[in-house]
Amino acid sequence: MRFKVSSNFHYNVKSQSTLILGNLALRTRSQKVVEESLTITPHVRHDEIVSASGDSRFVRFATGEAKDLKVTYQAVVECSQETVDASELKRVPVAELDHQTLVYLFPSRYCQSDQLARLAWREFGHIPDAYDRVTAVCDWIYNNVDYERGSTDAQTSAYDTVTQRAGVCRDFAHLGVALCRALNIPARYFAGYAFQLEPPDFHACFEVFVGNRWIIFDATRLAPLNGLVRIGTGRDAADTAVASLFGDVQFVSMTVNCETLEPDFKPLLSTDLSDKGLCLEA
Amino acid sequence: MRFKVSSNFHYNVKSQSTLILGNLALRTRSQKVVEESLTITPHVRHDEIVSASGDSRFVRFATGEAKDLKVTYQAVVECSQETVDASELKRVPVAELDHQTLVYLFPSRYCQSDQLARLAWREFGHIPDAYDRVTAVCDWIYNNVDYERGSTDAQTSAYDTVTQRAGVCRDFAHLGVALCRALNIPARYFAGYAFQLEPPDFHACFEVFVGNRWIIFDATRLAPLNGLVRIGTGRDAADTAVASLFGDVQFVSMTVNCETLEPDFKPLLSTDLSDKGLCLEA
Amino acid sequence: MRFKVSSNFHYNVKSQSTLILGNLALRTRSQKVVEESLTITPHVRHDEIVSASGDSRFVRFATGEAKDLKVTYQAVVECSQETVDASELKRVPVAELDHQTLVYLFPSRYCQSDQLARLAWREFGHIPDAYDRVTAVCDWIYNNVDYERGSTDAQTSAYDTVTQRAGVCRDFAHLGVALCRALNIPARYFAGYAFQLEPPDFHACFEVFVGNRWIIFDATRLAPLNGLVRIGTGRDAADTAVASLFGDVQFVSMTVNCETLEPDFKPLLSTDLSDKGLCLEA
Amino acid sequence: MRFKVSSNFHYNVKSQSTLILGNLALRTRSQKVVEESLTITPHVRHDEIVSASGDSRFVRFATGEAKDLKVTYQAVVECSQETVDASELKRVPVAELDHQTLVYLFPSRYCQSDQLARLAWREFGHIPDAYDRVTAVCDWIYNNVDYERGSTDAQTSAYDTVTQRAGVCRDFAHLGVALCRALNIPARYFAGYAFQLEPPDFHACFEVFVGNRWIIFDATRLAPLNGLVRIGTGRDAADTAVASLFGDVQFVSMTVNCETLEPDFKPLLSTDLSDKGLCLEA
Repeated sequence: MRFKVSSNFHYNVKSQSTLILGNLALRTRSQKVVEESLTITPHVRHDEIVSASGDSRFVRFATGEAKDLKVTYQAVVECSQETVDASELKRVPVAELDHQTLVYLFPSRYCQSDQLARLAWREFGHIPDAYDRVTAVCDWIYNNVDYERGSTDAQTSAYDTVTQRAGVCRDFAHLGVALCRALNIPARYFAGYAFQLEPPDFHACFEVFVGNRWIIFDATRLAPLNGLVRIGTGRDAADTAVASLFGDVQFVSMTVNCETLEPDFKPLLSTDLSDKGLCLEA
Repeated sequence: MRFKVSSNFHYNVKSQSTLILGNLALRTRSQKVVEESLTITPHVRHDEIVSASGDSRFVRFATGEAKDLKVTYQAVVECSQETVDASELKRVPVAELDHQTLVYLFPSRYCQSDQLARLAWREFGHIPDAYDRVTAVCDWIYNNVDYERGSTDAQTSAYDTVTQRAGVCRDFAHLGVALCRALNIPARYFAGYAFQLEPPDFHACFEVFVGNRWIIFDATRLAPLNGLVRIGTGRDAADTAVASLFGDVQFVSMTVNCETLEPDFKPLLSTDLSDKGLCLEA
Repeated sequence: MRFKVSSNFHYNVKSQSTLILGNLALRTRSQKVVEESLTITPHVRHDEIVSASGDSRFVRFATGEAKDLKVTYQAVVECSQETVDASELKRVPVAELDHQTLVYLFPSRYCQSDQLARLAWREFGHIPDAYDRVTAVCDWIYNNVDYERGSTDAQTSAYDTVTQRAGVCRDFAHLGVALCRALNIPARYFAGYAFQLEPPDFHACFEVFVGNRWIIFDATRLAPLNGLVRIGTGRDAADTAVASLFGDVQFVSMTVNCETLEPDFKPLLSTDLSDKGLCLEA
Repeated sequence: MRFKVSSNFHYNVKSQSTLILGNLALRTRSQKVVEESLTITPHVRHDEIVSASGDSRFVRFATGEAKDLKVTYQAVVECSQETVDASELKRVPVAELDHQTLVYLFPSRYCQSDQLARLAWREFGHIPDAYDRVTAVCDWIYNNVDYERGSTDAQTSAYDTVTQRAGVCRDFAHLGVALCRALNIPARYFAGYAFQLEPPDFHACFEVFVGNRWIIFDATRLAPLNGLVRIGTGRDAADTAVASLFGDVQFVSMTVNCETLEPDFKPLLSTDLSDKGLCLEA
């Protein structure tokens, strides 16, 4: 599956600052960045940061004397995916998880799974299979939380959303992650580009570790699951921020785009996948 | 510096469970575990988990049919430490941090640095040097928060403590971490054994990254900084829990001990270190 | 319906303090205090405070030099009650409420109805009649929140309980009040003595204004609704605290008792009242 | 002191709704409404609601079939005020407060004084006199909280503001009230019109009960204290909302105005009153 993604950022720089953008397509075994360009106007010192685990990739800018910073990114990305029968997506016992996966059971800034344990077990504890539990979590979020732009901010967490019942993709993902962790299912936040997302923007959803692989879920149902290009994964949005600003920098504008290069792309929606899971790490 | 540490746990197991204990001394370049023993009664299946980064080390137990689980740990640990002049402990610009350190700028479950930014800059932003800022953070916590057993619980976070002004070592450490991160100083949570802590218990404090090394701080002033044996470091207590229980397991009792094997141990208290920092990774 | 109620308080007084107890049976048109005694050892200055609205009644003590304060209260109370057919318990439009009732639509310290509006309308908005809505609110709380001593404290509010799903009678009442207010049904907190409550203690439940009268509900189902003796009503527990301490006073012990003087008391449980409401202001 | 105040509201009504506006000048012993007009287009059924305590006054509209509702209010108000020497503004012991005043010691929706007790006593407990304490509270808020439009919303409370350190007049008032109550000084929220407030808007500040009268304080320092016209007082903004909407009603626009009719009005700013308090209930 091949995609063309792009994003443009425009910032006003008031004083020498450092800027970290999380908008590059991640390079992984199953996601090849076929071509890529980054244009920075004016040209300022920058470097790429890749996490040791390979889960995230950032570009960091030292603004120097620049007053106005424009960043344009374009890439062609080849993604391998596979669908897996729900019957293979069993819960992995905590006793068999390695450390790298175990941390995705821990609560995090926006996913206070420790505070949602009773709620999660009451609502979903009776469902025997892990895959069905996660599907039920997604359905519950979809049915009980209003997708509403502007209803939340950068401080909103799963603890808020579970009660206030409104949010955007970030909030839906945080709540999904928190509920799954509360059920002892490792879950991580996924940040990426999304084909057919309207209006175009960065997207967030989440992956859970079942059947010894990471399966993607999206409680918003706003974009095809097979139209996602990974920017990074982490514990929550704190690990995968689109932009982190250190200094006096003002956001001016941003555009995001994602197109498929497949002539006959067939969207796989959450609702098409009732007895299968989609793995983006084929 | 050589220490003898030990801890005993007793649990009542109601159903087959998985238990993860974070009580082993960490093995690092500057902390050698000279000898070590782990006694488990009855003997149940267990394995050691070490994080990829080497920052934490756990032992995981599958209780099987055991109804009553007792774990005894003993170790002799050799720790290298060095004091560093405050003048060398400059703030490292965000533009120069590697990814492994950068994550310690992000907010986490118990350290919501994003919500404390204005407060941190107002209280400490006028202090020019990073080392002095962190010292001021510690003094502020020491002077403004009551150390009070039982005043907080496992859900208490820095956001609560900064207002409610009471807590235990864990809360003091979370608040220190959160305030330093809010000031763009990487900070991590330190869990360990502590010599001369009264009453004996596991201890928590925090390390900040200044002058390109991690320097230890303890806002509680309850134990000598050079009497600490590292169990692990992480973003906050979520990464370094003493015990994580998956299943129906009841805590019965715990004892903790830490002795020095140095005949002429000279305690270095926070207050002795006004113009120096102590690095536990010499 | 005649009851004998009593309560004993023992406090240790460290410095001259003021103490306000909310343990007296309220005097209303439908609740007569037939006899009453208050014994204070040692005798200290005290006065009775009754709110202008007649909704609460307190006794205030100036401890003076007393080091140890014991208060014993006993009363015989005659309560008039009536059951009302659910068909008469229609919602009163906001346009027809007087100011005294309107305030019971406002959010309060422990009942953040403003934050629960979406949740309340999603869960209960489809139920046409007010009485059935409130019954559904009570059933939801009963079925989704664990009654568990020690799981909450004096700062726990409805916003916590709706997510954390554990609490005591106070928390159940706060959540009931908050959800009803979110649905535009006036609701107030009820503090009282309760016959057959096990173990004996003060009890909390709530009243909603439907069909132009206040109907009592108890989501805990722990005591007969017709075995309640009113101490006071208010917006939430902040208005009807059992004890408010101003000064350095330590709680030592408390006992509470409530007996019926009716030889053939027939308990009316929430579950007996499926198509009727009980009004304690007959 | 004579003022002319006015306000205009424009709402879009989607379905039959009830609307309660809190924009009328209150009628009290010390505040005479000399003339007043309320124009409603189209004319819909409405009534005036005055609280039993006389602390608030609302107008309630039943929109009926109206699709577009415009409300224009104008009044000329005569206010009596007096300054009182700080030396007369002693703290009134809790043992001497009547019930109507006592409730202003209780925590409320936006003023969680119970959670701020340690902070309040640590910061202000050493100041001996009540008047000086309140002045110190105001100075602290003014010096530590940024006045910033749009930084908060209708759910923001004192607990948030004390940490997040940004807000508008409502938030400044809530924090002032909460801190004073935590110090056992009765405090209430004041909503009103304010002369010389820029840009013109409704204003909020707070009154504390010292020396047996209510003294006005404004931690924002944005308007003269003697230029305030009272709309209402209450526990917090929940009691004195400018507009409460029950039904599907959309806010379109609002204008507010307040002029003095005194040819030689001499503004009394908070900073002019260092050793005096202003009482608006002369």
